[in-house]
Amino acid sequence: MTDSHMSLETDSLAAMDVARGVSRLFYRQELVTLSEVPLGNGRRADIMAIDAKGEIVIVEIKVSRADLLGDRKWPDYLDYCDRYFWAVPAGFDLDLCAREELRPDIAGLIVADPYDAAIVREATAQKMAPARRKSETLRFGRRAAARLLALSDPHLAGFD
Amino acid sequence: MTDSHMSLETDSLAAMDVARGVSRLFYRQELVTLSEVPLGNGRRADIMAIDAKGEIVIVEIKVSRADLLGDRKWPDYLDYCDRYFWAVPAGFDLDLCAREELRPDIAGLIVADPYDAAIVREATAQKMAPARRKSETLRFGRRAAARLLALSDPHLAGFD
Repeated sequence: MTDSHMSLETDSLAAMDVARGVSRLFYRQELVTLSEVPLGNGRRADIMAIDAKGEIVIVEIKVSRADLLGDRKWPDYLDYCDRYFWAVPAGFDLDLCAREELRPDIAGLIVADPYDAAIVREATAQKMAPARRKSETLRFGRRAAARLLALSDPHLAGFD
Repeated sequence: MTDSHMSLETDSLAAMDVARGVSRLFYRQELVTLSEVPLGNGRRADIMAIDAKGEIVIVEIKVSRADLLGDRKWPDYLDYCDRYFWAVPAGFDLDLCAREELRPDIAGLIVADPYDAAIVREATAQKMAPARRKSETLRFGRRAAARLLALSDPHLAGFD
């Protein structure tokens, strides 16, 4: 295995730990999460979550400086959620997340470990367009149900 | 095990076979199913399914004559779906499903085996109220995602 493969694998494991911590934090807030969610614009959110009132939150997980600063497309997510968060592992340099281009005025910040997470900076709510909320809520539900189906019946895999 | 327990268990296995057949049939029609879905009125649908346009279908599974003819509460489901179906196992007496009190004028009929299913009688579409559709679509999605979460992280069980 090359160093670069090793680093990708380490990053991927670190990202899964962050995702679990975020899911536990959100669950207590009645926000139910789904991982790796393709959006109507062709991009894929690391985490999408929906609360009982239908509010949609998107979280992008960043486990390295290069990953965070190299992402030029993240503003595409903003129209697909009411609140947007960065999530980073414990020990990450939080000053990086305060950079102006990462929009600390609207983007929230979550610090997570494998067991839990905490909101370090709340996100500024920006209401989604109603039609977009409707279509994304439907897509979220069908995708979650399809993933469950695929687990119970291999004949029904392939939707996602 | 008493005869009555044995019969309950046999019925439950038969119902699971029907559910699988229905899920496969619906999947080809881009209707994604979720089993055992509590509704806003406190009842629990055997199967709820949603298609890409947001149409909601409810299916009640009946594996015995007593089960079918003894159900007095099924009309409660009609306000929670656009189309309603009975689903029975292959070999079931279909004349029973034509009884007037089971509303063959609106309720569709599906015959299923463990591997597939067929629509024997199409259901008459009756559009749900928009607010009801919105709330049930959200509940469907959150429930499906919560069940997925519970499978991946035992700390997040208990939503359903």
